[in-house]
Amino acid sequence: MAGEIRELILTTVAKNGGHLAPSLGTVELTLALYSVFDFSRDRLIWDVGHQAYTHKILTGRRDTFHTLRTLGGLTGFPKRAESPFDSFGVGHASTSISAALGFLIAAEIEKVERKVIAVIGDGALTGGMAFEALNHAGQLKKNLLVVLNDNEMSIDKNVGALSEYLSKIRLKPQFHKAKREFEDFVKNIPFRDISEKILLAANSVRAGVSAAVFPGAMFEALGFTYLGPLDGHDIGGMKDVFSRVGVINAPVLIHVNTTKGKGYPPAETAPEKFHGVGKFDKATGQVLKKKSPPSYTEIFAQAVIDCAARDEKIVAITAAMPSGTGLKKFAEKFPQRFFDVGIAEEHAVTLAAGMAAGGLKPVVAIYSTFMQRAYDQILHDICLQNLPVLLCLDRAGLVGEDGATHHGAFDLAYLRTIPNMNILAPKDENELRQMIFTALQKNFPAAIRYPRGAGFGVEVSEVPEEIPWGKSEVVVENSSAEAAVFAVGAMVNSCVAAAKILREKKIFVDVINARFVKPLDTELIKKSARRAKLLVTCEEGTLAGGFGSAVAEFLADEKISTPLLRLGIKDKFVEQGAHSELLNLCGLTAEKISQRILERLNEIIFGFLTVTT
Amino acid sequence: MAGEIRELILTTVAKNGGHLAPSLGTVELTLALYSVFDFSRDRLIWDVGHQAYTHKILTGRRDTFHTLRTLGGLTGFPKRAESPFDSFGVGHASTSISAALGFLIAAEIEKVERKVIAVIGDGALTGGMAFEALNHAGQLKKNLLVVLNDNEMSIDKNVGALSEYLSKIRLKPQFHKAKREFEDFVKNIPFRDISEKILLAANSVRAGVSAAVFPGAMFEALGFTYLGPLDGHDIGGMKDVFSRVGVINAPVLIHVNTTKGKGYPPAETAPEKFHGVGKFDKATGQVLKKKSPPSYTEIFAQAVIDCAARDEKIVAITAAMPSGTGLKKFAEKFPQRFFDVGIAEEHAVTLAAGMAAGGLKPVVAIYSTFMQRAYDQILHDICLQNLPVLLCLDRAGLVGEDGATHHGAFDLAYLRTIPNMNILAPKDENELRQMIFTALQKNFPAAIRYPRGAGFGVEVSEVPEEIPWGKSEVVVENSSAEAAVFAVGAMVNSCVAAAKILREKKIFVDVINARFVKPLDTELIKKSARRAKLLVTCEEGTLAGGFGSAVAEFLADEKISTPLLRLGIKDKFVEQGAHSELLNLCGLTAEKISQRILERLNEIIFGFLTVTT
Repeated sequence: MAGEIRELILTTVAKNGGHLAPSLGTVELTLALYSVFDFSRDRLIWDVGHQAYTHKILTGRRDTFHTLRTLGGLTGFPKRAESPFDSFGVGHASTSISAALGFLIAAEIEKVERKVIAVIGDGALTGGMAFEALNHAGQLKKNLLVVLNDNEMSIDKNVGALSEYLSKIRLKPQFHKAKREFEDFVKNIPFRDISEKILLAANSVRAGVSAAVFPGAMFEALGFTYLGPLDGHDIGGMKDVFSRVGVINAPVLIHVNTTKGKGYPPAETAPEKFHGVGKFDKATGQVLKKKSPPSYTEIFAQAVIDCAARDEKIVAITAAMPSGTGLKKFAEKFPQRFFDVGIAEEHAVTLAAGMAAGGLKPVVAIYSTFMQRAYDQILHDICLQNLPVLLCLDRAGLVGEDGATHHGAFDLAYLRTIPNMNILAPKDENELRQMIFTALQKNFPAAIRYPRGAGFGVEVSEVPEEIPWGKSEVVVENSSAEAAVFAVGAMVNSCVAAAKILREKKIFVDVINARFVKPLDTELIKKSARRAKLLVTCEEGTLAGGFGSAVAEFLADEKISTPLLRLGIKDKFVEQGAHSELLNLCGLTAEKISQRILERLNEIIFGFLTVTT
Repeated sequence: MAGEIRELILTTVAKNGGHLAPSLGTVELTLALYSVFDFSRDRLIWDVGHQAYTHKILTGRRDTFHTLRTLGGLTGFPKRAESPFDSFGVGHASTSISAALGFLIAAEIEKVERKVIAVIGDGALTGGMAFEALNHAGQLKKNLLVVLNDNEMSIDKNVGALSEYLSKIRLKPQFHKAKREFEDFVKNIPFRDISEKILLAANSVRAGVSAAVFPGAMFEALGFTYLGPLDGHDIGGMKDVFSRVGVINAPVLIHVNTTKGKGYPPAETAPEKFHGVGKFDKATGQVLKKKSPPSYTEIFAQAVIDCAARDEKIVAITAAMPSGTGLKKFAEKFPQRFFDVGIAEEHAVTLAAGMAAGGLKPVVAIYSTFMQRAYDQILHDICLQNLPVLLCLDRAGLVGEDGATHHGAFDLAYLRTIPNMNILAPKDENELRQMIFTALQKNFPAAIRYPRGAGFGVEVSEVPEEIPWGKSEVVVENSSAEAAVFAVGAMVNSCVAAAKILREKKIFVDVINARFVKPLDTELIKKSARRAKLLVTCEEGTLAGGFGSAVAEFLADEKISTPLLRLGIKDKFVEQGAHSELLNLCGLTAEKISQRILERLNEIIFGFLTVTT
């Protein structure tokens, strides 16, 4: 059965892309859990959820599994709306123990007999909120079962003292042998040979030994009973332990060793490559790369490396994403100035604040969606102190197949609420490079957000070109224009295309590359408001509080009554699908942008404005 | 010297209010640190910073200490702009280890010899990001010194498994004695009596014993060398240890036991009362209470208790603030349905999401400023799943003397960016009660934000009155009005007063209690826009992305060109001072509100609009 499931996962992910290595690693674990527990009654919560493909296949989604990660198909993560077996939606890390504890408390209050199990990776366990939850669970002393799925990986190789500690447990069976031998030794000490005092001491130690010393001392200190490590690919062994934990009337942590990518040699060999992967050739493991220009990620990494070569104060921080953020290259070049803190976005940001207060210029590269974790740290530690930290938010905007939990749709809106913050978005990969050069020369906080995937293939200038701070760039200018479109980031390109479509209809619109979401280029907005009949904003981000919102605020405050059309993502969560499909759904293709502008201009020109003073 | 400092702290806090008990607990600790380290070179980072009064007094601020927490005076927390000895600004918990690690790395890269010390309480240590930082520091193996200031308190009695674990260490000196005796015992085992194998075992155990078993096993597992516990009021003892840690080439955690409120019997007896305290009589410890109406906090607590009495699904969660949020009363009434998770806002919110997914109706009460920590959890765990969790944000708006780190100025703005969120603000304490009744009957997420301190003394209706969802309330209506003022929360009262001032000048404005910041009452806004020459929004919150911003978005989207005047907090951090002083600074008094409206109406009526189409 495990083989059949693996085959289905492999075939599907080779075609659709997806989280291959994590899901291959948990096939046996999932089967063992399902053969012991009854999840029509019990509850199973996957942390992150990228390892839950077997769970999906076992719970009525085998026949639809081929739709994985496609528009209208199965999501890549557990999702409550998709199945009653998906108890709790996930995507971000380290939430499972909190949620599981919530379910357990609910069952108690509702007087329902129910076991609740959280499965968390050693990577996700480094996230602070997992510790917060362990700390709470350990005190409540309820029958929570936490399965630690230890594959020594986060996305890349896991880091941190906890990870080193788990490795010690994992790698030293002689440690356990020594423990058993010592226990026998102590038990057999003849009474006559030692004073009572020493016996007492030895007993204390034995209590310590059995309760706290060896594998699991850390978890035992937090009130958990630790069991393991088990072989996570031995279904029988795991079933045996899972079926007996019911008798322990306390929170239990079962440490299970798994191999990421298990059963598929290319993924076992390069688990980070196959963590989240695009389409690939199943036979060879060769990833099918479309010929495409360098990615924003690559350009980002090279720009930071080039800056760091000239300025020793520049350091780089990632939260478990050296490959994903491109900083791996930086780490190779400047190992002493690179810091992977593990899945720990909050620490990453405050660490950077500390470094900046200490005189450095830290660059923090975290995906837009995960940066949400550090909202308070950005506000309280960086911006309140106006410290020169550069936040680089990769995967901003719609990320495509990873769906609702992963879209970087909120960054412009949540960052904009924070005083002293500066927010930049490049129109293409060359501008990203120039923005990094520019921002690293400033002595205050800034955030640059850029999309997932390939750039436009424009020429990237090696020579630094400073971007005038707070100034937008006119990209399409007409001698007279009906509308002025302020576009953010990659939307500049779409708006230029929209302008072309409109030009064919003899409607002339200016296109402005906003460059800055904060501060706004207020002069150019004013000028454009005087020039044009309509202002348009266009952003791949939420409309509630985003760039268009900032422009609406400015117009109101400056008593400018030029109509404003705001294009962006409605105040709703967006599901998964190809990036182009999602842009179309959100009305952010050149075609749809041009339509919306045309409609609005018609209204204005032919006088359909609904309310005037 | 300790006595002199205590006297100054006592006298000042009795007059100005402040964090008395935490600062009285660290007098000796601070003196010991200052006599060993040279903080012109070394760096000292206080966690939270409410315990840093001695530090302030010792670093050039003795003579200005009487201005503590007053407008333009010394802040209640370390602040970089205030002194070079305030290395890192604080206010929120659990940031110190991250920041200290940042300073340490900076010193290394800049090749400066410098010791860096973080002082963190056992309460703040439960915050997840402290764990993230320990995990990182333990791997980096740098000379970080963490002083654990263990007073068994967070603000109230500290909770969680970690706290229980520290108590075990703290309360059992016999434990350490046993450890020493066992070590002697093992050392003296005659070789001939035991086989080599067993010796090996015993050696492993000894290594375990000295490295990991007893006090500090948890920290040792994370790569820290643990020392302690020390008596935190014995300056000599602490100096002795502090001066010797330099030789340990690894991160060190020194566990220091202190007594919160030390040296002032009323505070030692009731440390939670004197954690953060208003003016009091130094001689008696009697807090000088102005006769004032019941606080929002009290009304909140009673409302939740009354709802919970009727609905067993209602549970309540706080993050280390049972007293501060008023939930202590709830806990007494429904101990099984009350959860204090410690300083762990992220876990609190996701725990609530889990409970809601499990069928309960959780109420999460966290101060507005601290809720910032859980932005991602609100988005990803509650709102993305549209779960019925009620967030209650106490201390929203300007909090007064606690200053910039503590103002609840951002909640409307950051919550508004999140799809599915509903945001309410009551105009008075009776409306708070009715909003809680109403929101707890809904099956989706909601947040209610309300101010610090006393209500207006209005009659509070025992009988539940349902607030029509998404509907505002017209409070002042004229037969014809020049302006319509939409006010949020307690600003309704100020705007009614402003309307009175204007009426005396024969200018008639309507005042509307917005009630909902999300969803907007779009019908009433439209109606008012048709009726009046000017729309005004007024909120005790940031203008960047707040309520006025939502109205500006709506007007733009609906093509309504009625001018909008947005009153609120500018996009800047606000310092400390009396609440009334700060409102005045922000232009949010009735007088200033009326002036702004008058000015703007004059412009409109006499035609000074700058741009029209």
